[in-house]
Amino acid sequence: MPKNAIGREIPSEVDGRKLKPFKGAYVPLESGFFTPQPKKPCVWGESKLLPTIDEAFARAKLGDGSCLSFHHHLRNGDRVLNMVMSVAEKRGLKNLKLAQSAIFPVHEPVCKMIENGTITSIEGSTNGPVGRLISDGRMKGLAVMRSHGARVRAIMAGDIKIDAAFIAAPCADAYGNANGRSGPAACGPMGYAMADSKYARNVVLVTDNLQPYPVLPPVINQADTDFVVKVDSIGNPQEIASGTTEIATDEQSLKIARGAADLVDALGLVRDGMGFQAGAGGASLAANNMIGEMMRKKKIRARFANGGVTIHLVEMLKEGLIDYLMDGQSFDADSAKSLLVNPRHVEITPDMYANPFNKGQVVNMLDFAYLGATEVDVDFNVNVNTHSDGTLLHGIGGHQDVAAGAKHCIVVCPTRRKTFPIVMEEVTNVTTPGETVDAIVTEEGIAINPLRQDMLDAVQGKGLPIIDIHDLAKLALKKAGGVPPPKPEYLDRVVGIIEWRDGTVIDVVRQLKPKK
Amino acid sequence: MPKNAIGREIPSEVDGRKLKPFKGAYVPLESGFFTPQPKKPCVWGESKLLPTIDEAFARAKLGDGSCLSFHHHLRNGDRVLNMVMSVAEKRGLKNLKLAQSAIFPVHEPVCKMIENGTITSIEGSTNGPVGRLISDGRMKGLAVMRSHGARVRAIMAGDIKIDAAFIAAPCADAYGNANGRSGPAACGPMGYAMADSKYARNVVLVTDNLQPYPVLPPVINQADTDFVVKVDSIGNPQEIASGTTEIATDEQSLKIARGAADLVDALGLVRDGMGFQAGAGGASLAANNMIGEMMRKKKIRARFANGGVTIHLVEMLKEGLIDYLMDGQSFDADSAKSLLVNPRHVEITPDMYANPFNKGQVVNMLDFAYLGATEVDVDFNVNVNTHSDGTLLHGIGGHQDVAAGAKHCIVVCPTRRKTFPIVMEEVTNVTTPGETVDAIVTEEGIAINPLRQDMLDAVQGKGLPIIDIHDLAKLALKKAGGVPPPKPEYLDRVVGIIEWRDGTVIDVVRQLKPKK
Repeated sequence: MPKNAIGREIPSEVDGRKLKPFKGAYVPLESGFFTPQPKKPCVWGESKLLPTIDEAFARAKLGDGSCLSFHHHLRNGDRVLNMVMSVAEKRGLKNLKLAQSAIFPVHEPVCKMIENGTITSIEGSTNGPVGRLISDGRMKGLAVMRSHGARVRAIMAGDIKIDAAFIAAPCADAYGNANGRSGPAACGPMGYAMADSKYARNVVLVTDNLQPYPVLPPVINQADTDFVVKVDSIGNPQEIASGTTEIATDEQSLKIARGAADLVDALGLVRDGMGFQAGAGGASLAANNMIGEMMRKKKIRARFANGGVTIHLVEMLKEGLIDYLMDGQSFDADSAKSLLVNPRHVEITPDMYANPFNKGQVVNMLDFAYLGATEVDVDFNVNVNTHSDGTLLHGIGGHQDVAAGAKHCIVVCPTRRKTFPIVMEEVTNVTTPGETVDAIVTEEGIAINPLRQDMLDAVQGKGLPIIDIHDLAKLALKKAGGVPPPKPEYLDRVVGIIEWRDGTVIDVVRQLKPKK
Repeated sequence: MPKNAIGREIPSEVDGRKLKPFKGAYVPLESGFFTPQPKKPCVWGESKLLPTIDEAFARAKLGDGSCLSFHHHLRNGDRVLNMVMSVAEKRGLKNLKLAQSAIFPVHEPVCKMIENGTITSIEGSTNGPVGRLISDGRMKGLAVMRSHGARVRAIMAGDIKIDAAFIAAPCADAYGNANGRSGPAACGPMGYAMADSKYARNVVLVTDNLQPYPVLPPVINQADTDFVVKVDSIGNPQEIASGTTEIATDEQSLKIARGAADLVDALGLVRDGMGFQAGAGGASLAANNMIGEMMRKKKIRARFANGGVTIHLVEMLKEGLIDYLMDGQSFDADSAKSLLVNPRHVEITPDMYANPFNKGQVVNMLDFAYLGATEVDVDFNVNVNTHSDGTLLHGIGGHQDVAAGAKHCIVVCPTRRKTFPIVMEEVTNVTTPGETVDAIVTEEGIAINPLRQDMLDAVQGKGLPIIDIHDLAKLALKKAGGVPPPKPEYLDRVVGIIEWRDGTVIDVVRQLKPKK
């Protein structure tokens, strides 16, 4: 079996799909052309309003094997994906491909549709229940996992060919303009639907808040919209906020946060004009708070913060600690409101944020960024896709993008979760290669990637709890009980592909052996 | 010689270019694909800053025959076009194609470059001196004239292949984000450069106001920018404002304005929720003022106005007479400032405004719009490109787009200019076909297109000075002195093509016979 640049075995073909092995995070990428955008000139005076989603399926000529896309700005409050897929199921469609930017627990009905063959492949983020089905081999086709930036790349490169983008639109007009800034399901930015709106064969706005023309700013533009469908409710506002935006208060997390904040300070990164990404995990948010405190003391301002925006960043913006917020997605309702009223809080697209095929990404401008991890190994490889038992659990989010782009990529995580070590000899699957990960901050110390001699030099003599990654892995195992958890047992079949940002394959996920 | 749908003789080929004859303003347009956008993945950490424009020519590998594009938001204050073209000339480049969105008197140096073969063809708006050169046959190749919407269409369809877009940027960062909202040459929107930034082989920002990263909102986006060049000055702020935004006060213009305002009122268009385009000519602006007065009396609000935005529209926005301003270009400095501070004043692109190949244009949503004319004939055809002596004078602007889109397209013009009738038997050249023009408002009366029986019915008994277009033409000739001006005499050579919005040819412009 051929191996890729980090030694993972990658079959040359899966399910009729040729796989290109990962060659390194910074190999030069080829110039050329994106796939062409569809052209469908409107007819003067023709209405785009359709009475039902069913009618949109008919007008868009969706059939067996169609690829349907969705955005995840409504998060666990989204009602559109289930609504649209139930229409697909009622129409008896089979072998559909789901190309959502992410799914959430609320989308549990997707499981049944995978089992009954309505959906047979996924090119998008997974979550727990769907991931488990895939790992157990119960989806007929493949799951392809990509980062936020890579999803845009794949759409623009023609790797994902979307037959219809169903775009949940908190505020829309009948001629096809929409944004996420007002309405009962206001979600803030809507950038995850942007590439879909430009490249999908059909673009359908689904809204519960139809306003008189024009809805401005036209984040999704009339120039790109085919149809508009009014429904009763596109989302549950109570569930649009994610549960991940609370600042940690437990001792272990605060210890990690302290390390993360002190590390960037020791590196000289807490300085006037800095740009950073805070993350949304509890420890990252706590570190963010500590950095805010440092900024006040030093009387400095950050030039920008990028997010996943939380109320905590919004408050720093209001206080004047940050000049600009670049907002790819809002994690809570207050952040969405700020976007509406604060001209220094600006919506950006995942293309601008992270598409590795474009001419410059926001991630490249980050002085530092905090990221999470499910597993980290002694080569600094990070796994966020699978649990240590081999089950697909999570999407990639911006993990790969931020790691590759940020000048200092700092992973914050505890050394273990219950009896599972998080820092270990070798991760179960690789999401993000070690060459892009600069430091691991845990409650037991900070391991710096030996590739970053500059960082090792910079922190010397600053009193930080620096520890060798191998020692950290040993400590983690000890804390987790001393016995490595059993390695997952696999069948041969590949059920999932983890793509690197550029479309090469960094790892594959195999079907788990049925448990006796 | 084959004739197109309105009887103009269109050769099947000119200069190796096959011409498709105009078939009607509302023929169905084909679906398909736009031309693909170039893909040039950035290299991490590589600077986009270049020391000189000369270096940009070298890096973009521009050579003989290259096509260079420019936007016209700085209007007669623009310094970038001349600056860049003088570099081209110094590098000894020949046979360049100019693809500017418009040129102004300040670009007079272009004339010399046309004469010496630096520039041999133009796909963009012309003005007086350049138009005269072309009409006299002194440019080697062709001039192709397109409307604002058609220019975007042509770029997106691959009809104009731009080798380098040099984008004058009033505010920019070194990673390639730019907008027109601040800086010594602030111009407001920058939409005319948008399609160029997506489709040009190279995108070069030229700025005199380099700000720390990030410049937001990123109207021109880092994802699309190859290079950034800092120069001393991109524009003269005193000349960025156009001279055409003063409200007319002379008796004739006020009579026309009265007719224009009373016509839309009689048609029932001055109503709550209306959308309109005011134009920037003195009489249109006066009509706009009168409509404002009607709105105050009726206690109604317009939902939106679209422009070319002037201070007069901005004041109506502030007063609450208009809910939203959709701004494609600012005609004065105050309008540009309003864009910066008023969230109901929103920048839009010419794609959204008017590209006939997209899925819905702003022009289609206009209840009424005022347009100017150089000549109008008894078939309601309008000429804005050539003078009655056959000389190319003007660009098309949004004329065709608005005429085709607006539910009521109203041309406002006097019956004559000096001894030249404006309303006449047959226009010298056709820019906009009569089937899209609904009424002509002059100081001698209002002619309504017989195709619009609904409008003829609606104005009956309302006391408007309705007049038959043939009678109006006779009156115009009489007022102009009674003797039709001599018809221009042409050589066979076609020097210019006037495209309809969809890329078909509505008319050609021939070389004038040298005067003895």
